[in-house]
Amino acid sequence: MIELTRDERKIFHRLATLEEASIMLSGLATHLPEPEKVGLSQAFGRVLSRTLYSKIDLPPFDRAEMDGYAVLSSDTEGASETAPLRLRVVGRVDAGSAYRGEVAGGSCVEIATGAPVPRGADAVLMVEHTSRSGDFIEVYKPVTPGENIAHTGSDLEIGEAVLRKGAVIGVREVALLSAAGFGEVEVYGKPKVGIISTGNELVEPGLELPPGKIYDVNSQMLGAAVAEAGGTPSFVRRVGDDLETIKGRIAAAIDGTDLVLISGGTSAGLGDAVYRAIGELCDPGIVAHGLKIKPGKPTVIATHKGKAVIGLPGYPVSALMVFNQIVRPLIQRMTMVKGRSERVVEAALTQRVNSAKGRRWFLPVHLLGGDGQRAYPIFASSGAVGTLARADGYIVVPEDIEYIEGGEGVKVRLFGDPETKDGLVVMGSHCPALDLLLEMLFEEKGISARALNVGSLGGLNAVARGECDLAGIHLLDEATMTYNTQFVRRAGLPDWSLVKGYRRTQGIAIPKGNPKGVTGLRDLIRRDLIFANRNRGSGTRVLTDRMLKVIADELGLDFRDLVGRIRGYRSEFKTHSSVAAAVGQGRADLGVCVKGAAVAYGLDFIPIADEEYDFVINPECKEKEEVKEFLGCLRSNRFREMAEKLEGYAFW
Amino acid sequence: MIELTRDERKIFHRLATLEEASIMLSGLATHLPEPEKVGLSQAFGRVLSRTLYSKIDLPPFDRAEMDGYAVLSSDTEGASETAPLRLRVVGRVDAGSAYRGEVAGGSCVEIATGAPVPRGADAVLMVEHTSRSGDFIEVYKPVTPGENIAHTGSDLEIGEAVLRKGAVIGVREVALLSAAGFGEVEVYGKPKVGIISTGNELVEPGLELPPGKIYDVNSQMLGAAVAEAGGTPSFVRRVGDDLETIKGRIAAAIDGTDLVLISGGTSAGLGDAVYRAIGELCDPGIVAHGLKIKPGKPTVIATHKGKAVIGLPGYPVSALMVFNQIVRPLIQRMTMVKGRSERVVEAALTQRVNSAKGRRWFLPVHLLGGDGQRAYPIFASSGAVGTLARADGYIVVPEDIEYIEGGEGVKVRLFGDPETKDGLVVMGSHCPALDLLLEMLFEEKGISARALNVGSLGGLNAVARGECDLAGIHLLDEATMTYNTQFVRRAGLPDWSLVKGYRRTQGIAIPKGNPKGVTGLRDLIRRDLIFANRNRGSGTRVLTDRMLKVIADELGLDFRDLVGRIRGYRSEFKTHSSVAAAVGQGRADLGVCVKGAAVAYGLDFIPIADEEYDFVINPECKEKEEVKEFLGCLRSNRFREMAEKLEGYAFW
Repeated sequence: MIELTRDERKIFHRLATLEEASIMLSGLATHLPEPEKVGLSQAFGRVLSRTLYSKIDLPPFDRAEMDGYAVLSSDTEGASETAPLRLRVVGRVDAGSAYRGEVAGGSCVEIATGAPVPRGADAVLMVEHTSRSGDFIEVYKPVTPGENIAHTGSDLEIGEAVLRKGAVIGVREVALLSAAGFGEVEVYGKPKVGIISTGNELVEPGLELPPGKIYDVNSQMLGAAVAEAGGTPSFVRRVGDDLETIKGRIAAAIDGTDLVLISGGTSAGLGDAVYRAIGELCDPGIVAHGLKIKPGKPTVIATHKGKAVIGLPGYPVSALMVFNQIVRPLIQRMTMVKGRSERVVEAALTQRVNSAKGRRWFLPVHLLGGDGQRAYPIFASSGAVGTLARADGYIVVPEDIEYIEGGEGVKVRLFGDPETKDGLVVMGSHCPALDLLLEMLFEEKGISARALNVGSLGGLNAVARGECDLAGIHLLDEATMTYNTQFVRRAGLPDWSLVKGYRRTQGIAIPKGNPKGVTGLRDLIRRDLIFANRNRGSGTRVLTDRMLKVIADELGLDFRDLVGRIRGYRSEFKTHSSVAAAVGQGRADLGVCVKGAAVAYGLDFIPIADEEYDFVINPECKEKEEVKEFLGCLRSNRFREMAEKLEGYAFW
Repeated sequence: MIELTRDERKIFHRLATLEEASIMLSGLATHLPEPEKVGLSQAFGRVLSRTLYSKIDLPPFDRAEMDGYAVLSSDTEGASETAPLRLRVVGRVDAGSAYRGEVAGGSCVEIATGAPVPRGADAVLMVEHTSRSGDFIEVYKPVTPGENIAHTGSDLEIGEAVLRKGAVIGVREVALLSAAGFGEVEVYGKPKVGIISTGNELVEPGLELPPGKIYDVNSQMLGAAVAEAGGTPSFVRRVGDDLETIKGRIAAAIDGTDLVLISGGTSAGLGDAVYRAIGELCDPGIVAHGLKIKPGKPTVIATHKGKAVIGLPGYPVSALMVFNQIVRPLIQRMTMVKGRSERVVEAALTQRVNSAKGRRWFLPVHLLGGDGQRAYPIFASSGAVGTLARADGYIVVPEDIEYIEGGEGVKVRLFGDPETKDGLVVMGSHCPALDLLLEMLFEEKGISARALNVGSLGGLNAVARGECDLAGIHLLDEATMTYNTQFVRRAGLPDWSLVKGYRRTQGIAIPKGNPKGVTGLRDLIRRDLIFANRNRGSGTRVLTDRMLKVIADELGLDFRDLVGRIRGYRSEFKTHSSVAAAVGQGRADLGVCVKGAAVAYGLDFIPIADEEYDFVINPECKEKEEVKEFLGCLRSNRFREMAEKLEGYAFW
């Protein structure tokens, strides 16, 4: 562990723009991997490093393009169905062989497609325009000189460039190289890329996750990104925040690879070791520390003897954004692959976005709606990998504007292929039974769905704005003590747009064995208990407050007085799981969540209420095939049977 | 070799449509490769065969999103720059570790980004809003509950679907799987595809090419196409046209792979063995023999116990078209990858195209022009691999129309990526020195060019129609005995659009040692000589005729009488190489071509004239950067030095 004093913590003052960083990097990172010879079956996707000139003509001889007879065209002049001409068949030639003799006037040679046209003949008569008896044919149609012959070199001539230096070898290029007889070709070398993830908190995926640790995302993610960009991940290591170890790994990577990526440890934080290590190892050294982009500010760009050494932010989303802006172009330049520009679609921003004060902001968005595309900004933390994986693309919010107004047109740069968009977009509150339902939908109907967990109110509003096909909600109206209906009406949606789903059991999650003897919500005022409360606006918080009001009445207390006495009442856990986790990890002693979450964390559970989890359908989508199939699955016996096997679900 | 009588030759009567064939195939070819488990680093590009539910919350604990201090938010209420509040620092927690104690009122714990928030704290105060002295901090700004904390499960909850069955694993999916701790995943199996090329004429690329043989294109091309579609080429064999051998190979392929492709031998020709072999081996057997498409008619579709066995045409272009229409969708269905639809651009057809009489025609085109895209149909034989490799895409000419008129809008389905289009389009007559020039242009200026060899007149017309940037031409005007200028004027182009290039030596190519004692074109009337003449419209034919007219005058003969006496005068060899090859292979005794072609075939050469090879520039493109750079290279000393090393070139 490195101890840095407060003064040593780097606060970013002079940040480089993306353009400055790219120019500096392309001037200094001049190292290129050596070209290599590869067999044709390994050449697909590679880039030719040398122009290839044909050593043969293609076709290599005058080739028959049809089955028939090689003839002198002058011998067929005037032939017709009514007045056929007669020729003597003097031989035959098949593909792969050669006819030794000569075709003289009045004679012909039977010929197969692909066979060489014999000396003397200047055309091929199609078999369909002849009839044969013994050694003679009747000719029903004349041919012109050259007819049905592919002339030597007509496709490719000796000495002609087959493919030029820089050509990307695709399927058609493989065909052409084969045709010209190249068994191997020289291609630009794929850069070997060293990938080092730093952080004491990182654990390899697949292993057990100890408390306080997280799985290492960047090793695998950057490996995949390197492969996609055309490089080869070749020195992949995970290290803790120890300066000497980090230095050793980086030094080894610089030695053994063409380009080095280090992630984590580049921020102004307590555990900053990567910056120091790079600074001490690299010559000419660090060219930029900090970029004027969001996310991606804590990026270190250095070079060592022509090789780029880049410190990426530790957050996967930030690391990937910087990779795409800085590293991908570098790899593509090294492999000589012209960078394919990103796919861009136009969309209207669903809400106002304030700019990132002098930093260029790469803001992930969901694309919603059919033709009139809408872009829904995702303000999640850069630590939120799941959110990134569900985003469709990102917009660039320029550094020199104040804001982009809601409704304004923006260009969305797509992460993936718009053709493979999901058939059904579901928002709202997360529910394990809904996950089951969506899986059934894919298996039985081939419909893939995207589920965005934005909470009940978020989902309802998304339906009202037309941003999704349907939403799962569980919202308790305190006035009527009914679920969902009042909220749907208030959102201006017709009653029929609410479709009944199922009931879920809510209750108090407590540690296994209930060591503190909790009996109900009334215990919350005990001073030895810390409560994990849900966020304001969540259905569960509404339910909790409703029950606390009853308790306040019973105790003769004002509601505000009561909650003022509850330790942790002001906390705002955003999900059922986060409540259960807080209890499971001892950060709180009790909390309110659905039974499934408590069971997942091995907690005991005191049921307090059943809530109604229903679906609100976007009225414009009610005739959409995917929506109809969704409702069919919801009503099916198979779904009910499967869902009832989960903990805490009941059907109407 | 199989001997088939005329009656046994299959003439296609009942052809299947593409739709019929696809429906039959999807009903019968039900075999699927087994799903397999792969490590995450091998999972990129694969498709999940099972929905994965998260076993952890993400983040797995309440995580600090900033460097700073974990506090009770209520302790910071009212703090400001002018009236800071004071808190005692009781400890510190880094990423990857955990704080054992509790944060009580009036105290705080120093915390690093990524570290777990200690029990009791409900917010993280950014270090920038504090100042520290000893064990105390001054707080300059209040925080709200939950501020700068990523709550447990806010990104992904325990039990939530991480990725669903059918998800394609890209970079972001690798990130998400890592984050959720999956070290390996179950994916759909990649189909192993057997590829068998048949034909006595086929030789493996890289080996010597004997007379009458051609290189095997389909093995490598189909291998690359299979890999691109998501399969694995796994049993690649080349066999002659022998029924028993073919049967043996197909039987082995059916046994060892998931899908079998055989190319060649499916036509109605003399060497038809594949059809018989497939018919004898497969159960339920052949479902279609012949498709209503062009190219691709001679296709055999069969299944054996749920596995597809497909006989593709031998011509590579035909084989690839059928692959794309029939096999690619099949592989994509097997791998569960949603077929990405082809990229399509709109363009105006440059000339009328008659339909293929009841067959759907996949007609390759070049795309020309900038914004107002024009599609230039390529009527080359399906044997012409080089032509295919240079095509941009194809249009579909429906089977039920008469024709598409020139100028009509068509949809061009692109083979590749329009973003990587070449910077310079050159048409006209092929010339080895031009190849050199284009290579220089790429090496020195980074400009990639596409050269289409359409002949001098074709190139001139293309410039006049605005279809290319420039063309290389060598056209002799008989009236004035000058090159090119008159043709440029007649095409309506300004004189300045003609840029002088260089001179090439034309002459008579004769076998090494001149065994028949040829002295000049006057010998053409000798009865023991066969002449290889160029096609009408070529510059060389014009030159030849001009010289023959002089000879006719000298001999006191009518021109028509003279050429009537020349054996082979009516032949129409389309390239310099094809003339030289005909002489080299003994199919003719002499011909007229450029010196380079004669030298390439090891022939002797009698010079008869210098021709002027010049460039005509599209007037609309004269300011185009690529054109200026081209002309710069043409005028450079380096190009002159290089070109003068070629045989038969001279500069002005």
